[in-house]
Amino acid sequence: MPIDLTPEPEAAELARRTAAFVREVVIPVEEEYGGSLARAGEEIRTHLQSAAKDAGLFAPHVGRGLDMRGQAAVFEEAGYSLFGPLALNIAAPDEGNMHLLERIGTLEQRDRYLRPLAAGEVRSCFAMTEPAPGAGSDPAALRTKARRGPDGGWVIDGRKWFITGADGAAFALCMARTSGEPGDRDGATLFVVEADNPGMKLIRHIDTLDESLFGGHCELVFEGCVVPEDAVLGEVDQGFAAAQVRLGPARMTHCMRWLGIARRARDIAVAHVAAREGFGSRLAELGMVQQMIADNEIDIAAARGLILQACWELDQGRSAAQSTSIAKTFTAEAVWRVVDRALQMCGALGVSGDVLLGRFLREVRPFRIYDGPSETHRWAIAKRVVREAGT
Amino acid sequence: MPIDLTPEPEAAELARRTAAFVREVVIPVEEEYGGSLARAGEEIRTHLQSAAKDAGLFAPHVGRGLDMRGQAAVFEEAGYSLFGPLALNIAAPDEGNMHLLERIGTLEQRDRYLRPLAAGEVRSCFAMTEPAPGAGSDPAALRTKARRGPDGGWVIDGRKWFITGADGAAFALCMARTSGEPGDRDGATLFVVEADNPGMKLIRHIDTLDESLFGGHCELVFEGCVVPEDAVLGEVDQGFAAAQVRLGPARMTHCMRWLGIARRARDIAVAHVAAREGFGSRLAELGMVQQMIADNEIDIAAARGLILQACWELDQGRSAAQSTSIAKTFTAEAVWRVVDRALQMCGALGVSGDVLLGRFLREVRPFRIYDGPSETHRWAIAKRVVREAGT
Amino acid sequence: MPIDLTPEPEAAELARRTAAFVREVVIPVEEEYGGSLARAGEEIRTHLQSAAKDAGLFAPHVGRGLDMRGQAAVFEEAGYSLFGPLALNIAAPDEGNMHLLERIGTLEQRDRYLRPLAAGEVRSCFAMTEPAPGAGSDPAALRTKARRGPDGGWVIDGRKWFITGADGAAFALCMARTSGEPGDRDGATLFVVEADNPGMKLIRHIDTLDESLFGGHCELVFEGCVVPEDAVLGEVDQGFAAAQVRLGPARMTHCMRWLGIARRARDIAVAHVAAREGFGSRLAELGMVQQMIADNEIDIAAARGLILQACWELDQGRSAAQSTSIAKTFTAEAVWRVVDRALQMCGALGVSGDVLLGRFLREVRPFRIYDGPSETHRWAIAKRVVREAGT
Amino acid sequence: MPIDLTPEPEAAELARRTAAFVREVVIPVEEEYGGSLARAGEEIRTHLQSAAKDAGLFAPHVGRGLDMRGQAAVFEEAGYSLFGPLALNIAAPDEGNMHLLERIGTLEQRDRYLRPLAAGEVRSCFAMTEPAPGAGSDPAALRTKARRGPDGGWVIDGRKWFITGADGAAFALCMARTSGEPGDRDGATLFVVEADNPGMKLIRHIDTLDESLFGGHCELVFEGCVVPEDAVLGEVDQGFAAAQVRLGPARMTHCMRWLGIARRARDIAVAHVAAREGFGSRLAELGMVQQMIADNEIDIAAARGLILQACWELDQGRSAAQSTSIAKTFTAEAVWRVVDRALQMCGALGVSGDVLLGRFLREVRPFRIYDGPSETHRWAIAKRVVREAGT
Repeated sequence: MPIDLTPEPEAAELARRTAAFVREVVIPVEEEYGGSLARAGEEIRTHLQSAAKDAGLFAPHVGRGLDMRGQAAVFEEAGYSLFGPLALNIAAPDEGNMHLLERIGTLEQRDRYLRPLAAGEVRSCFAMTEPAPGAGSDPAALRTKARRGPDGGWVIDGRKWFITGADGAAFALCMARTSGEPGDRDGATLFVVEADNPGMKLIRHIDTLDESLFGGHCELVFEGCVVPEDAVLGEVDQGFAAAQVRLGPARMTHCMRWLGIARRARDIAVAHVAAREGFGSRLAELGMVQQMIADNEIDIAAARGLILQACWELDQGRSAAQSTSIAKTFTAEAVWRVVDRALQMCGALGVSGDVLLGRFLREVRPFRIYDGPSETHRWAIAKRVVREAGT
Repeated sequence: MPIDLTPEPEAAELARRTAAFVREVVIPVEEEYGGSLARAGEEIRTHLQSAAKDAGLFAPHVGRGLDMRGQAAVFEEAGYSLFGPLALNIAAPDEGNMHLLERIGTLEQRDRYLRPLAAGEVRSCFAMTEPAPGAGSDPAALRTKARRGPDGGWVIDGRKWFITGADGAAFALCMARTSGEPGDRDGATLFVVEADNPGMKLIRHIDTLDESLFGGHCELVFEGCVVPEDAVLGEVDQGFAAAQVRLGPARMTHCMRWLGIARRARDIAVAHVAAREGFGSRLAELGMVQQMIADNEIDIAAARGLILQACWELDQGRSAAQSTSIAKTFTAEAVWRVVDRALQMCGALGVSGDVLLGRFLREVRPFRIYDGPSETHRWAIAKRVVREAGT
Repeated sequence: MPIDLTPEPEAAELARRTAAFVREVVIPVEEEYGGSLARAGEEIRTHLQSAAKDAGLFAPHVGRGLDMRGQAAVFEEAGYSLFGPLALNIAAPDEGNMHLLERIGTLEQRDRYLRPLAAGEVRSCFAMTEPAPGAGSDPAALRTKARRGPDGGWVIDGRKWFITGADGAAFALCMARTSGEPGDRDGATLFVVEADNPGMKLIRHIDTLDESLFGGHCELVFEGCVVPEDAVLGEVDQGFAAAQVRLGPARMTHCMRWLGIARRARDIAVAHVAAREGFGSRLAELGMVQQMIADNEIDIAAARGLILQACWELDQGRSAAQSTSIAKTFTAEAVWRVVDRALQMCGALGVSGDVLLGRFLREVRPFRIYDGPSETHRWAIAKRVVREAGT
Repeated sequence: MPIDLTPEPEAAELARRTAAFVREVVIPVEEEYGGSLARAGEEIRTHLQSAAKDAGLFAPHVGRGLDMRGQAAVFEEAGYSLFGPLALNIAAPDEGNMHLLERIGTLEQRDRYLRPLAAGEVRSCFAMTEPAPGAGSDPAALRTKARRGPDGGWVIDGRKWFITGADGAAFALCMARTSGEPGDRDGATLFVVEADNPGMKLIRHIDTLDESLFGGHCELVFEGCVVPEDAVLGEVDQGFAAAQVRLGPARMTHCMRWLGIARRARDIAVAHVAAREGFGSRLAELGMVQQMIADNEIDIAAARGLILQACWELDQGRSAAQSTSIAKTFTAEAVWRVVDRALQMCGALGVSGDVLLGRFLREVRPFRIYDGPSETHRWAIAKRVVREAGT
């Protein structure tokens, strides 16, 4: 049977309905808040999620058998608005955390944490990144430690930052070193730490270029943070492997969502240049504008192809380490270029709040850094190529 | 049924056997001639094509039901050597001409021209491009004219250049204007002109940067060139539409073949940097080299994804005008970047004839121009986007 | 006498003192306000300008015989902080307005408007850009009209936007059409409109990506705005020529200031990668980081060379249209690349408010659009090249 | 005194006369040989050099007090043709060798080697680069050894490749290790080896992408090559320092010459697009073409500015290591981009031998590798930046 790129009808239908919902319900709210979830509060989350539930679109990745290829179609449509993923409860970091809990959580952990998360009753965060000299691009530098507590549990000490969504999260998934030293490539364990644990403190909101991830980017301190034995998610000392379970798919769902924003930026810009005159013709007929239009098309199509390849591999149960790195690196840079060109095409209007392109530019910039900076992915890609070359 | 990227087993097997054949039989010959078919002669063509016949790999696109997706796998492997497409009889322009004759030729034309062409008994050329101010990037500028002859046939007058493979071709497919004026977007007709027609003269071989298309790039003059009525291929005045039949798929088979060369360049460079030391480490471990390795991977993967998308659309019977333009533009530029980086990674060795990278650089450069320059494709892509935006 | 790049001692000394002042006095204030002048108020302006007066650095471009080459050195140092140009009273749009008033103002206009402006007693704005379909990248589209008033003066009607610094400005220099129709390349006149004129209304602050130009980017409406005859700055119908007097030098002073920010971004990033470890070495020793460091050096050096060339031509009294377009286009894009790379080098820290790189990215982005988008400059550059080629 | 970019009248006049000579005398010969000096022989060199002597333009860098800034103007004009530098006797490697001999040669060495070289009576080569694992981008890897000979002289053993101009050279300047081991950053010595020395053998001409350096790129073997004590150029063990004397200025003279070719490519392309029609207008009026025209202008202007900066530093007697690395890296890449765009602007004509753009592309490609690959320069630039940052 030949290669078949025909989208699965159920996924295609879900994507179409998501697209309509985003345009009709989500975008008006997003525009009212200038695209900043930092300005919107809990009531907006509730409002949007209720609407998604009413529309039968809430948490589309849960319980419908939607594989990664199907998610690619749906998440891209959700990502057409900065507020879309939150509305559907498929925003980072919750979406990745759900995936992880589903894959490696115990029955009890899934009941206690996954169920309410999937229902939108609570939010969560993933506490891995540390300020220098801790775990940044290089996870092995992990310095947060967990030692055995007096009565069978664990005591966590350390500092985490850029913990997305931490403010208001019901629990954190915290990576801590249970053996070895900073620099070692294993010895990490994942713990669930509940928000009311007095040993986990939110120190500050980090002011960042982007503002559309709900709950902000926070700095957390763990000081003598006692957790019970069953707070371990997965196996002791297997935290990095667990993170990998989360990272491959999470990398792709990020790409899907941001590809949605790239398409939105493209559409805004095309509408603008198609309508406006200058230098004696429609802007859309000027060669340099046409070049930007075409380059946007090419970037979007190429990113979509790479995402699809990686998703297909993930759906086969493969690690897809190379193809997700390739897709992530290209997409993060392509999305950035598309938004940048779209803004340029709109001229002064593009840098104004009258369109959301400046906001999009701020939101997509960090994606070239988080989930692995482009440089780290290129390093990893090259290592694999040379290794496979058998030399 | 979900999207499926699993290659069809038959095509995959054919690709594997093609790969082995190219490495074992074709590359030694290619290297002996420094990658220049201009230096090799008819006996090399015969030798390679015999070997391909013996290996059961000759003309894989004929009579095996290989669709475009299957061709993508096989042609990329054939393209791994500059001499591979000729060996398999899938080189430009013959491969595209076979496709065209099969699609729009009469029974008689197919018997007279397609059969020996597919068998490798003869070669052909496609005479469309004209020197300024005639048909170049803009086919509508066509100036070669065909007027009704005295006894029912046609008389062609005009000048063509960059006619690939013209020297030694048994016949030319010649585009001439049968109605309208230069600048009109219709009124062209395709004619088959046989090599012994005294009205068609080969004026010169054009010295070009590339040298790996057999039969060279030639300049032809048509002077009072009389052809019979049944020399018309397709319909009178429908030549541009006929060319479109050829162009979409031909654009993609070009991409497949050149993607093969990109992979070859990549492999040469990776082997080099994996083996060589410098600045206190293996070159392959230097960050700037790793960046080039990774960017090559990304470019190759993205090009392959875009080609696959376009091929799938063509196989659905769609025009695929947008997706083939996108795939062609990206691939032509990506292949160029890959070869350029590979050469850079090899340093002085890279510009020497001791490896074929300098040759590859020369061969792939024109692909950003022929089959539509990148600028023309971008213009067309943008026009379609704006049109579809409904404005 | 050979070409001499030795900086003039007086300018060099002034640049050195400016650099020290910016580091010691200005940067602490800038960092306190996160680099946003939108968050700082009039008292900050007063404070900084007083400090600059005390340091003998206020309005260095006035009355010291500092030519454009000298300004290049001093303004770059002032631009090392987003708040530096305001402190020295050499920020846009006042600095360009001073230049214009000095060159084409009458004695009376210079006394009434230039003197207090140069003293920092008042601010001003330049009201040229209009919302579509008015004057944007293409000034000839100018729609704001001025007709003869009942008693010898003029009556202005129209709408302007992106009028930098308008809020709080003591007067606006307003471009209005006194003859011809939108699309005509002449017929414009410059008027001085004082802030208390009831016919000029500030409609809104436009929310923009950048926030470091004092007084914001505003939208103004002129409705039956009556001005006296002596409100004409320069000659009637010669407004575009007058704007040119302002534009060439203003283009360069923009470049100088933004080059300062590029250097600041570079310094922040170099300090970061020199201090931080990762992947088993200092970040500064990783090849991909070294590539970014080097590309920043190259971009900064090339921009400085182009600015110097243009300044030297301006100082010769030449129009320098081509060299200022080249310098502006390259510098705007180079500065953007430098800030973007610097941010990337700092990773997550780079997108946080803990360093000002995200702020810088927002501030420099619009410079690829204002003072002529890169596309408009490229169009103009190409036109001149083709014209000079005599064809 | 302010910075002054006015060219020195004598240098400007020499540049003007050189430009005229190149257009009238040199280009016709260059075009006849398709730009390939590999196809031209000694009689062409003699013919062109005689003509240059007659025109009073021969060896302009000798005996006229032309500093580097002056050379920049003259060499760029000479470089406007691939054959220009040979005609004026300022081609690589002779020009750099003359500079080196003048700076560090003994009186006797200057009389014996420099005098006839400057007169065009003989040619020379510089034998430094070795095949892997010897000295390539990293000179410290030097493996060719010189040991003390039986009677006071030296015996050289080793292998060199890419030795430009070796075939027909009267002598080679050969770098050999007199102490230490491969990898050590000192211990090298420069020797003059005369062509008739039986211990120095020309093994082969290396087939390379470029063909316009007279005498080709050769591989040499030194086997028991005995040279007398006074064959040492400069000091024993100080060879790398001596090479530095040569490298800085040689790097810049390369840039000057290749900038000439970039301008030539630009001129050919502008003339083409100004004359040719397509898509309903002159090609020169299409936006994407205008973008290429403008980017060429920008690249050429920026390269010229960086070269000037480096030359001025060299003329001050400074090492100029950073500024020559910056200028070399940018110019090599800019020249490549300019030629590539020029070729693209000419379409099919551009890849044909009917214009020399394909030839230029082949000639300029290696410049991104020789005289230090771009990657090596970037590495060195970054090291210096970090070092100067004091961290």
